[in-house]
Amino acid sequence: MADEVKLHGFWPSPFSHRVIWALKIKGVDYDYIEEDLPHNKSELLLKYNPVYKKIPVLVHGGKPIAESLIILEYIEDTWPQNPLLPTDPYEKALARFWIKFAETMVTSFRAIIRSTDEEEREKGAKEVVERLKTLEEKALGDKKFFGGDAINMVDITYGLVGYWFKNVEIVMGVKLLDSNTLPRLYEWAENFMKVPVIQENLPDRDKLVAYIRIVRERGSQQNPSN
Amino acid sequence: MADEVKLHGFWPSPFSHRVIWALKIKGVDYDYIEEDLPHNKSELLLKYNPVYKKIPVLVHGGKPIAESLIILEYIEDTWPQNPLLPTDPYEKALARFWIKFAETMVTSFRAIIRSTDEEEREKGAKEVVERLKTLEEKALGDKKFFGGDAINMVDITYGLVGYWFKNVEIVMGVKLLDSNTLPRLYEWAENFMKVPVIQENLPDRDKLVAYIRIVRERGSQQNPSN
Repeated sequence: MADEVKLHGFWPSPFSHRVIWALKIKGVDYDYIEEDLPHNKSELLLKYNPVYKKIPVLVHGGKPIAESLIILEYIEDTWPQNPLLPTDPYEKALARFWIKFAETMVTSFRAIIRSTDEEEREKGAKEVVERLKTLEEKALGDKKFFGGDAINMVDITYGLVGYWFKNVEIVMGVKLLDSNTLPRLYEWAENFMKVPVIQENLPDRDKLVAYIRIVRERGSQQNPSN
Repeated sequence: MADEVKLHGFWPSPFSHRVIWALKIKGVDYDYIEEDLPHNKSELLLKYNPVYKKIPVLVHGGKPIAESLIILEYIEDTWPQNPLLPTDPYEKALARFWIKFAETMVTSFRAIIRSTDEEEREKGAKEVVERLKTLEEKALGDKKFFGGDAINMVDITYGLVGYWFKNVEIVMGVKLLDSNTLPRLYEWAENFMKVPVIQENLPDRDKLVAYIRIVRERGSQQNPSN
């Protein structure tokens, strides 16, 4: 009981998946609690994450931790096997720099799937592609994974990029991770999704496409004037 | 040479000060390079931080690290003396949660000092005060410092809050850290600025007031239509 691990998540969420993959890589057993988002959050979720009221929340021995990137660091500190960060402080700082960089893409990405304004969507797509280029050039380089030969916390942070983007392309007709303009990052995404622990823990593709359609529809309801 | 530490900063910046205080607490000698912002960044700064082109940048043995919160973690990993984070993984996760929370205030704070629109400024101020209330209630509680009896990385992260806010109040006439509505956080700010290593490394008050006036003026030039 004292060491019981529980994860409050939401099946299509890239943020939930970061935590799921990290726990699987570490070989940590956990109970998964699916939250009914966005309108029916559990009392426990509201109690565990009163500041943001968002998934994912990891609960370890009754103590809650919120925010996917904070949870990843906690997992690394608590279960050191199969390390997700380099041990060298400088390499670790670089990894954290690129992990943090992921946050600069979130707003632009939300504009792509939620906005009904064509111009806003295009602006969002342009920003995302620019940042992916920076990521490819400066962080990935010629490596197979951000972590080198094996995946690390940077790979996990960007993990659902390829998968989500492919499905956003299907629904929205907007090209984000293009094999011509971003060949190395495209290949990284392919390689990442072939890693067994990742492949075995991806959301179902058809369900995800249906979900992205719903989010898009919901987004346009939120902006009725557009 | 191999261990030489250099810091590219900007004298009024709260982000520079996070790094300065951490280095002082650790007892690390460094050379300080003042950047001429916003229009005359050094070639070195652009080379060291090509992604954001922003200060602070710490250069250790020729290797650059950008982003103040990433630099603080690097300093903690590299110079373990006088620890800035708890060793217990759960306490460490909580500290990191509140450090990250600081970022939710930056946009609102910028609106206060840069916007010439009264409504936008008031909205920014309301958001900042709400977040400070959350911080006081959930993170500080009845402790003297966020770190308990001594300051830690959370204190350093919010360190210039009291100092900047006081001076913003002078220039803008907007009340942010009010001793009536936020008594514990107000006292924390007073106590924090009395810690010798902090007190000895604060920007000059008159210079800061003059600087905030300039930023305000510059902000209104950027929004000539308002």
